[in-house]
Amino acid sequence: MHLSDVAHPNQLHGLSINQLEQIARQIREKHLQTIAATGGHLGPGLGVVELTLALYQTLDLDRDKVVWDVGHQAYPHKLITGRYGRFHTLRQKDGIAGYLKRCESKFDHFGAGHASTSISAALGMAIARDAKNDDYKVVAVIGDGALTGGMALEAINHAGHLPDTNLVVVLNDNEMSISPNVGAIPRYLNKMRLSPPMQFLTDRLEEDFKHLPFVGETLTPELTRIKEGMKRLAVPKVGAVFEELGFTYMGPVDGHNLEELLASFNRAHQMTGPVLVHVATTKGKGYAIAEKDQVGYHAQSPFDLVTGKAKPSNKPKPPSYSKVFGETLSTLAENDGRIMGITAAMATGTGLDILQKRLPHQYIDVGIAEQHAITLAAGMACEGMRPVAAIYSTFLQRAFDQIVHDVCIQKLPVFFCLDRAGIVGADGPTHQGLYDIAYLRCLPNMVLMAPKDEAEFQRMIVTGVNYTDGPIAVRYPRGSGIGAPLMEEGWEPLPIGKGELVRQGDSLLMVAYGTMVNTALQAAEILSEHGVEATVINARFAKPLDTELILPLAQQIGRVATLEEGCLPGGFGTAVAEALMDAGITVPVTRIGVPDALVDHATPAESMAAVGLTSNQIAERLLQQFSVDTPAERSKVH
Amino acid sequence: MHLSDVAHPNQLHGLSINQLEQIARQIREKHLQTIAATGGHLGPGLGVVELTLALYQTLDLDRDKVVWDVGHQAYPHKLITGRYGRFHTLRQKDGIAGYLKRCESKFDHFGAGHASTSISAALGMAIARDAKNDDYKVVAVIGDGALTGGMALEAINHAGHLPDTNLVVVLNDNEMSISPNVGAIPRYLNKMRLSPPMQFLTDRLEEDFKHLPFVGETLTPELTRIKEGMKRLAVPKVGAVFEELGFTYMGPVDGHNLEELLASFNRAHQMTGPVLVHVATTKGKGYAIAEKDQVGYHAQSPFDLVTGKAKPSNKPKPPSYSKVFGETLSTLAENDGRIMGITAAMATGTGLDILQKRLPHQYIDVGIAEQHAITLAAGMACEGMRPVAAIYSTFLQRAFDQIVHDVCIQKLPVFFCLDRAGIVGADGPTHQGLYDIAYLRCLPNMVLMAPKDEAEFQRMIVTGVNYTDGPIAVRYPRGSGIGAPLMEEGWEPLPIGKGELVRQGDSLLMVAYGTMVNTALQAAEILSEHGVEATVINARFAKPLDTELILPLAQQIGRVATLEEGCLPGGFGTAVAEALMDAGITVPVTRIGVPDALVDHATPAESMAAVGLTSNQIAERLLQQFSVDTPAERSKVH
Repeated sequence: MHLSDVAHPNQLHGLSINQLEQIARQIREKHLQTIAATGGHLGPGLGVVELTLALYQTLDLDRDKVVWDVGHQAYPHKLITGRYGRFHTLRQKDGIAGYLKRCESKFDHFGAGHASTSISAALGMAIARDAKNDDYKVVAVIGDGALTGGMALEAINHAGHLPDTNLVVVLNDNEMSISPNVGAIPRYLNKMRLSPPMQFLTDRLEEDFKHLPFVGETLTPELTRIKEGMKRLAVPKVGAVFEELGFTYMGPVDGHNLEELLASFNRAHQMTGPVLVHVATTKGKGYAIAEKDQVGYHAQSPFDLVTGKAKPSNKPKPPSYSKVFGETLSTLAENDGRIMGITAAMATGTGLDILQKRLPHQYIDVGIAEQHAITLAAGMACEGMRPVAAIYSTFLQRAFDQIVHDVCIQKLPVFFCLDRAGIVGADGPTHQGLYDIAYLRCLPNMVLMAPKDEAEFQRMIVTGVNYTDGPIAVRYPRGSGIGAPLMEEGWEPLPIGKGELVRQGDSLLMVAYGTMVNTALQAAEILSEHGVEATVINARFAKPLDTELILPLAQQIGRVATLEEGCLPGGFGTAVAEALMDAGITVPVTRIGVPDALVDHATPAESMAAVGLTSNQIAERLLQQFSVDTPAERSKVH
Repeated sequence: MHLSDVAHPNQLHGLSINQLEQIARQIREKHLQTIAATGGHLGPGLGVVELTLALYQTLDLDRDKVVWDVGHQAYPHKLITGRYGRFHTLRQKDGIAGYLKRCESKFDHFGAGHASTSISAALGMAIARDAKNDDYKVVAVIGDGALTGGMALEAINHAGHLPDTNLVVVLNDNEMSISPNVGAIPRYLNKMRLSPPMQFLTDRLEEDFKHLPFVGETLTPELTRIKEGMKRLAVPKVGAVFEELGFTYMGPVDGHNLEELLASFNRAHQMTGPVLVHVATTKGKGYAIAEKDQVGYHAQSPFDLVTGKAKPSNKPKPPSYSKVFGETLSTLAENDGRIMGITAAMATGTGLDILQKRLPHQYIDVGIAEQHAITLAAGMACEGMRPVAAIYSTFLQRAFDQIVHDVCIQKLPVFFCLDRAGIVGADGPTHQGLYDIAYLRCLPNMVLMAPKDEAEFQRMIVTGVNYTDGPIAVRYPRGSGIGAPLMEEGWEPLPIGKGELVRQGDSLLMVAYGTMVNTALQAAEILSEHGVEATVINARFAKPLDTELILPLAQQIGRVATLEEGCLPGGFGTAVAEALMDAGITVPVTRIGVPDALVDHATPAESMAAVGLTSNQIAERLLQQFSVDTPAERSKVH
């Protein structure tokens, strides 16, 4: 059987080890070819090929449920659940998604793009199953990096308390999150990886006893004590932490040995209560270049399979916002020992790896732990440091309560740097950074800013580092800016709450935020060609809003459009509208932004067009409104 | 020395055990008298009297930092940090706060009202200290319940990875959160409580070795191995989980034995790296009635010290929203086995204890773990259950990303029941439920509702349980409703997105949400006395908004006021304003709600008056606007 013939994962049932190994090779081949062509997550999938095949041979995927944490490790899963033929469309518009999605396949039992959710979801399914008196199997597959996320630990605390709820947690331990792992839990796992596999003697004993009809359940307390005693005799006791927390620990299992995997999974399914199967895998397995550089090959833009090098882009790009961030912060930090850059396992993604290299003592990676990152920053702020938390807009959602409770209520000077704010492109709905303006703007004491270009971004970094009155945040997009020349001098902070007039015109007031300033200027040029002259304000701050600048112009011009790369409900445009209403200025306001719906994966340009945020679309929409609303001006417009 | 003479905690230095015991008695006396008179948290403070005194005798509070988790255990701390004289004003307007606040005392090194934040904040302070080359001590005091919160575990993962960062974590283990603890971690702690104190032999050995000048640091790897080996010989090994995670474990320590506490804290301060001191305390210690009923006496309304009974209220009150919730949901659950009530350690507070008693198999307490609670619910929803997550508005902030990522993006039918939404009164800023409309309204697929009274609340519970198209939330206030008679029949769901016209008038359109419907009607009566007749809409839904009902009336009447018990930025009034703008209806809108600032502790009525939300204040404000904005109508108004 060839991989292309696998339309249903149950077709793996009954295949020999040799046959599975053949499929494994084909999966790796297809996986490598596809990612080399389209880009995507390379290392995670390669590491779990055998794990996936072995697991699926022990399951009936029509009944049993598998919850893959994060989902970027689930490309092999996709290839054996009917998506082989369309796999070349990976991460492209209308193609196969880069993460799992319930709407994409009935075998995607739970979607994910963020880490650490799988055990909770799987436990929910297991509890539901028991409530329905059903008996299907439920499995969560979670990486060792994701295990440091607080919610995964909350789930373990809960599952370990339910000795009658069958749940298998497969720990895919590749010793990595996206960056090398941080923390005591990964260190502990590493210690276990180096230990010989444990004997399952104690559990066997208990099960054997239970099957004696005259003993049965009645002796359980006694048996428990015997089991406890025997556990302590196991020296060294591998997995003691998980056993103490109520899980049966199995492992470490060689994650590239199908025989060992099959035996372990079959055994795990027979056990009662929560079981943790600790599988040691190698990220990038089977592609030597990726095995050697596991950080570099976690996710890839299109590359050459032989050399492993990224395919050269057609035109040179300006530096990414992340790089500008890393460089600028490092320069500031060199002159100010109070500055501390904090990342939650995204050193490379945020550009903080630059700080790490230049000033390792002013750099902290807390692991996948956004909540802890923010309250840690709050504690540092209490002691006079200048904590700078660089977290993607979508991941900062994890720390919302910490932002409210530990930072805003105490008015502590934590500087939030929200990378990937706005449309993110190929990563899709789970990663879109669309809600940050809305979820931060409602909080007292918060200052919000967004730069129109890279140079202004640098000044906002200076502004954030120098602002000590309370929390302050800056949002900036994924990828490269517009190529504005970076600052050489002029490193003064911006005045808080002050915008900038960037174009003048009498017919329309456009108030734009962040990336949309440039779009607004382009749209204004198009409008100008149709006789509509727009004033354009670069708002710079969504909170506090520059009402001194905006309100009189709104009143005078009598027609307002707001532009933002964020969700419309409660966003930047709403801030402008609220200010107008509160001032009693009743002029028409057109809020342009991302509508209240999910934005699917595609290139950023495709997504922007899909939600109507190109300069052409915006100009057209505004022109239409002019012709509808103000027929008297129609002649002027056309 | 009498407690009243203690103006600074350093005055405890040098006191004998006898003298400290005397102070302890005086603290308990003052604490009991005060809570009996004012209400407040009773049990937590009584449990940590000796812990506080012993800890502070080993610290210099002018330099050293103490972070108290949650803060409701810190009344003894308040009594010895200069607040004895004002302690009778506890939880009253302009009086001493019920939680810690940095602005209340320089000895409140970090504020808190939510659980599980202390280790993160303390670690941040410890890292800041080391960056500044300072050497003060940093201590976090955390309860065993709070330890199950994910962010506390994230912090332990991080701290355990920093062997050179001195940090003392005092685990105040009273075997309780507000409700009895849930989970594998508390069970593990309980096992440790029952063990004899461990020998500190291995650590001693290491330290002794280090002091031999010719051995020193060079032998560390060797010593580490010896220490590891010796650890394994300790049978049973108490605290193995914490030791594996990089902490030095000390305990269990008798939390009411000053001598033992002093010895342990002194020893802990001398150690290098993170130390966990496991202190076994009794919640309510010293007040027999509270020791016996630890759930009932966690927090109290004013009560009689001799009988322990709550002082009878002057007038009989209608049942609380929480009770209506618990009763109604239980009735529905009796007829629908798919309904599962989920709480995060707040069974009594949310009224889910009623479900627990009546249908224990349809009730889940996950511990202090809101994140896990929501994704667990999402997993259950995938499998056809009807999960109902009852979480206070302020605590649901913890699960914001799970709401976005696991529920809304997947459009799963999870029913969110947000208790304590709006002004909460004496608990103050950390507990105000002001942001939920804003932080939920920006999310795609979300349905938001709020009832005008208890009977409508019942119908909304029916609506939420029956709605299977996606996520749905209802917000309701703390305390009793207006006394509306509960439903006997009519248990049909409400139509989604449909409001209700509750009063008609030509001069003003009032659109009110939830609790403010009643206020709006009262205000309308006052306005009517001044000749202004208002139409009042009970919106019922903030999302989707009933634009069919609201927009034509707004257009026709030409003047709108919105009323909500929530934050103004991005809230309900903004939803109405957005709808008007999007429809091109430019009429003046007055948004009435909670301004963009913290709301301090006070009675709910006092807080409502402080933010201008009484019916009189609202009527006055609207009348003023009439006289300013429409002088032509002035004659009509007066």
